[in-house]
Amino acid sequence: MNPIVISVPDWLAEETAKLPQLMPSIEERMSHVIRFSRLNFERGTGGPFAAGLFEKESGKLVMMGVNRVVPTHVSSAHAEVVTLSLAQQALGTFDLGGEGMPEMELVVNWRPCAMCYGAMLWSGVRSLVIAGSGPECEEITGFDEGPIHPDWVGEAQKRGVTVREGVLNAEAVQVFRDFAASGALVYNGRGGSS
Amino acid sequence: MNPIVISVPDWLAEETAKLPQLMPSIEERMSHVIRFSRLNFERGTGGPFAAGLFEKESGKLVMMGVNRVVPTHVSSAHAEVVTLSLAQQALGTFDLGGEGMPEMELVVNWRPCAMCYGAMLWSGVRSLVIAGSGPECEEITGFDEGPIHPDWVGEAQKRGVTVREGVLNAEAVQVFRDFAASGALVYNGRGGSS
Repeated sequence: MNPIVISVPDWLAEETAKLPQLMPSIEERMSHVIRFSRLNFERGTGGPFAAGLFEKESGKLVMMGVNRVVPTHVSSAHAEVVTLSLAQQALGTFDLGGEGMPEMELVVNWRPCAMCYGAMLWSGVRSLVIAGSGPECEEITGFDEGPIHPDWVGEAQKRGVTVREGVLNAEAVQVFRDFAASGALVYNGRGGSS
Repeated sequence: MNPIVISVPDWLAEETAKLPQLMPSIEERMSHVIRFSRLNFERGTGGPFAAGLFEKESGKLVMMGVNRVVPTHVSSAHAEVVTLSLAQQALGTFDLGGEGMPEMELVVNWRPCAMCYGAMLWSGVRSLVIAGSGPECEEITGFDEGPIHPDWVGEAQKRGVTVREGVLNAEAVQVFRDFAASGALVYNGRGGSS
């Protein structure tokens, strides 16, 4: 049986190589994640979503990833799942919060969908930073974010994950507007985002 | 950059090849899924979870998959995500509910965790069949199922997915008991199941 293979576009490695190795500020981390979310739909390599994994304290970049649902035929290949899986396989561990590892932070250009929220909890990251969690993403793009738990912030905190919202909100929303204006594919009415 | 690669164990293809091509009854579908959940931990190839994808009406087997978190270092490689992704890549579509396709049913040996519930919704399946959704899995195995939406059945129905619970419940629970008695690894306190 063939394995599941989720490829990443060539530009992702090229653009990642150009990034600063250390990004001390949250805003800097988010600004690059938002830029990658834009590059992904502009280059036709997936939906307008990206996620970056960083060492929380130092801001060292661990991995950048993007939505790959349509090109790879995998409905679970949202940006968060792609980034977390790439990082876990690169580091050789399914637990990014394992003993002796620095605290990891996931930076995403919008609130994770119902699936990615769970994926984030199981990954071992200790911090989630998002540009927003309001209705803008669904309203502008038409994606369904799914039935996330009503107390998703509290449930994350119970599991040792802090949540910070509202970093560069307007910049993230502008990507959704430009995506919608581009006439790009919003894959099926049931399709999740991120 | 290397792609994400989620391999499956050799026994999965061998055992799948021995299965009936058509399984008209739900109980027959579930009995094989439960057997695969047992094989997976007994052979040391993952946690005690399996998922089968079937054409709902005919009972034609589309794909069997199992939990692969520990061997592949991917915390998202739960049985549901593995099965759905294998099927989607085999069929060449991210939407198992696309036009012209028969209705698809996902059969799992317990209620999907918070992540897999979302993954199921985005996959395009139209039916979810589970052996149970009570506290037995978490209590016996120690896995955390995560913060699924309180009205998860209703939220699934809103998105066109029907849920049937309680098929071969006792048989599924027995696998969890045997798993726990085996002293097998329950991967980290935050780790999801399925």
